[in-house]
Amino acid sequence: MATAFSMFERVELQVASLAMTRVEASLRAALACATAKGCPPRLSEALEYAVFPGGGRLRPQLSLLAAAGCGDGDPAAADAAAGAVELLHCASLVHDDLPCFDDADSRRGRPALHKVYGEPIAVLVGDALIVLAFEQLGRITSSRSAALVVELAKAGGAAGGIAGGQAWEVEAAAPLEEYHRAKTASLFEAAAAMGAIAAGASPAPWRRFGELVGRAYQAADDLMDAVGQSTKAGKPTRRDFALGRPNLVRAEGVAGARARLEAMLHDTFEAIPPCDEQASVRRWLEQLTARLKVC
Amino acid sequence: MATAFSMFERVELQVASLAMTRVEASLRAALACATAKGCPPRLSEALEYAVFPGGGRLRPQLSLLAAAGCGDGDPAAADAAAGAVELLHCASLVHDDLPCFDDADSRRGRPALHKVYGEPIAVLVGDALIVLAFEQLGRITSSRSAALVVELAKAGGAAGGIAGGQAWEVEAAAPLEEYHRAKTASLFEAAAAMGAIAAGASPAPWRRFGELVGRAYQAADDLMDAVGQSTKAGKPTRRDFALGRPNLVRAEGVAGARARLEAMLHDTFEAIPPCDEQASVRRWLEQLTARLKVC
Repeated sequence: MATAFSMFERVELQVASLAMTRVEASLRAALACATAKGCPPRLSEALEYAVFPGGGRLRPQLSLLAAAGCGDGDPAAADAAAGAVELLHCASLVHDDLPCFDDADSRRGRPALHKVYGEPIAVLVGDALIVLAFEQLGRITSSRSAALVVELAKAGGAAGGIAGGQAWEVEAAAPLEEYHRAKTASLFEAAAAMGAIAAGASPAPWRRFGELVGRAYQAADDLMDAVGQSTKAGKPTRRDFALGRPNLVRAEGVAGARARLEAMLHDTFEAIPPCDEQASVRRWLEQLTARLKVC
Repeated sequence: MATAFSMFERVELQVASLAMTRVEASLRAALACATAKGCPPRLSEALEYAVFPGGGRLRPQLSLLAAAGCGDGDPAAADAAAGAVELLHCASLVHDDLPCFDDADSRRGRPALHKVYGEPIAVLVGDALIVLAFEQLGRITSSRSAALVVELAKAGGAAGGIAGGQAWEVEAAAPLEEYHRAKTASLFEAAAAMGAIAAGASPAPWRRFGELVGRAYQAADDLMDAVGQSTKAGKPTRRDFALGRPNLVRAEGVAGARARLEAMLHDTFEAIPPCDEQASVRRWLEQLTARLKVC
């Protein structure tokens, strides 16, 4: 399974340069906490490898966009939410690349983590990053901490979250839409909702927007897997086909998948929540769109 | 690595029968949440297998003992804390048994989870249980939710928590005390501290008590690995020696390890925090002691 799409992610979206600075700072602070005294040296090194340098940090950017759209009344909470979302994402990539799943040699254009540090450390890096994500939310001095924890947990968990999404891969038949929603869209959805929650706003419109971004992202990822180059993807392609996994292109063909992606992107623009930052959100989405439509 | 000790755990400690009922109810509620609509069937079944039937539920009992010792002013928060601690423990056992770690065939007297459901599901069960543990804490309607999240995260994380503890196993040299504290004592420590926090009390004396219980438990576990029978342990023995892992018996011999265990248990009795429930805590510890001294 492939939840990341390095080609998209490695490009820093211009409109989000301030957001990128905040995201990196939040992740740096989190990593300092995880690799503090008591962390064995190889685990410490591998945690750094899993998180830095990152891809395009799309999910945490989405958190910060949503927080900005809701007035960003508590930037520290928004930064923690953004960091937590990215940490959970990094964890999912490391576990996803393990031999018992994708058995991927590369990720983000570099050797996959377990190829460098071995399987035991890869399992532990994933575990430690999940824990660290929640720890960041627990450390917020805000009454919204608990709501953020629940939101992130829904995105990572068994019922409709990332763990559930990956688990569809071992079922004889997986419902494509449910599979895509759980393995990918759930975290985009949470990312946007958590930005709104951190800012003290209602998450509902942002949750919907995030889910649509995530669905479009996964459709583009399926196209990349089916017809893209691994050098562009930063990871192996043709994996869904080789491993017999649900893929939009297998279900609807290349032209069908492209049409679906187009329709999803249209819906996503329509779903930008009314707010003072609509123009920024639109620009971010335009740049993302250009990258999602390369296949 | 072996963090569980089924022989100890399978015996329900009599003094804690009410606590056991509360723990099982908390875990049932948590599992219902994880296996709700959207959870793929095999993952759902495997989550159940990982958590039920449990061992002796020592760690969550410790949470509830500490909460009781502090007046148990918020039983729902204490139950959630106890459940979260046990979920994190179950997660660590499932990942610990994987082929890349202990490669254990059995756990709690049954086939290890990955032997029944395969490695991908075993990795995902661990991930989903970690997420679920934090979700339970996020769902508490109490201002103490965030403090509980941080406490659990410290016990599970890279710096001095379970992930860090396991990661010492891939280092060329592991400091025995640090290794034992991280892989085992950290969660006992958090279990007791979280009970106190849930009840609105200072966690410090309970944290110290929990840590000592955990250290004694690990010393007994090392003895069981070195000289016990796998039928009694409910899991393979002689693993620490076979895998070249730090073990108190390797460091100090059987007699030395027994003497250390004796001293640790003495210190643990001395560290029972002053409270109205001291007699109950003492009885619990007496029963635990009888079980820890079988080797």
